[in-house]
Amino acid sequence: MAVDFYHGHGSPFSWRVWLALEAKAIPYNLKVLSFQNEETRKPEVKAINPRGQVPTLVDGGFAVWESLAILEYLDERFASGAKLYPGDAGNRARVRRLIAETEAYLYREGISPIVDELFWSGDKGPNPERVAKAREKLAAELQYFAAELKGKFLGGDTLTAADCVLAPLIQYCKRITFRKPETKLDELIPPALRDYNQRIEALAYFDKTYPPHWR
Amino acid sequence: MAVDFYHGHGSPFSWRVWLALEAKAIPYNLKVLSFQNEETRKPEVKAINPRGQVPTLVDGGFAVWESLAILEYLDERFASGAKLYPGDAGNRARVRRLIAETEAYLYREGISPIVDELFWSGDKGPNPERVAKAREKLAAELQYFAAELKGKFLGGDTLTAADCVLAPLIQYCKRITFRKPETKLDELIPPALRDYNQRIEALAYFDKTYPPHWR
Repeated sequence: MAVDFYHGHGSPFSWRVWLALEAKAIPYNLKVLSFQNEETRKPEVKAINPRGQVPTLVDGGFAVWESLAILEYLDERFASGAKLYPGDAGNRARVRRLIAETEAYLYREGISPIVDELFWSGDKGPNPERVAKAREKLAAELQYFAAELKGKFLGGDTLTAADCVLAPLIQYCKRITFRKPETKLDELIPPALRDYNQRIEALAYFDKTYPPHWR
Repeated sequence: MAVDFYHGHGSPFSWRVWLALEAKAIPYNLKVLSFQNEETRKPEVKAINPRGQVPTLVDGGFAVWESLAILEYLDERFASGAKLYPGDAGNRARVRRLIAETEAYLYREGISPIVDELFWSGDKGPNPERVAKAREKLAAELQYFAAELKGKFLGGDTLTAADCVLAPLIQYCKRITFRKPETKLDELIPPALRDYNQRIEALAYFDKTYPPHWR
């Protein structure tokens, strides 16, 4: 039986779940909710996830939300396709450590303040010091993750949950650069991560997960 | 063989690992690093964890950091004591969802901005609007988690990883109230969570994990 996957195009949190569903070849019903129309806040969505957010997954009546809980759930519940947390306790701990670091440092201290300032600072406009500091942090983190590559991907030659989390954020850096070329965030991506990103984009299922409004 | 546990007193991130080590009855060498003396930044610590942070765990030469990766590792690696992520994929997903929500909403949108403003706003002083908004969010999240209790703890009648994450943050609310009584954060804790906190404090090992400088 297919799972229901509530998704919002362009959310890096929701995108990671879509990549995981595809990597694991899990049948799913894609339910796209529009952020613009505030569809995640609709009563029928909040009846499933009281926080009114994507991603949300429903599997035979059981609902789970928060993207990292969903990734772990999919890997435990479905044996098909890629193993998102492969290997022994040590290997699995490394994948989870990389995920935590991607969220805490690359995203929250790097990308997120830049997005805040450039897109959400309102009339007062962006704070250039905060942008510069976050850009420096982002550069250092991109170098850190380039050094963590093991073979084709972060966990080895097959896709893991760590890639499902990192890959949408590299796309996000490219998207920010497209919208705000002066940020030149794409120039911060080291060669090893550029190659990595090409391997991600070459995955058979990547293209269909790409946000349509970003094309 | 005992694991090495690098800890900083008062860090809610590190505290969760200590509670997990005790709940699972895992032998450990406690290595306390002083934040005040910047001991986490010492070269011998950064040789183990390049981020120079606690908690860090070393198990037979294998180092893992980021508290949530450590909690998962301990539960996979050691069969003793409490099962931190018990039950089937659905139950485990619920524990992980509660952890993600504790971090994202109760901590980062509730406690963290309050601490920022009251302790780190420097000469300009705290922004009362930001404090008030965060306090309101914290109140709503405390109600949310009170409603998520299942029996004695969050996951049922035994301690899970979700409790290891939530319990230090309830202590943190109490500590902030002690340092800044005008915040009255302790008044936001609903009766069900007060009772829960008493059960946590009654755990045989709780007392020794309490930050000595908070007494």
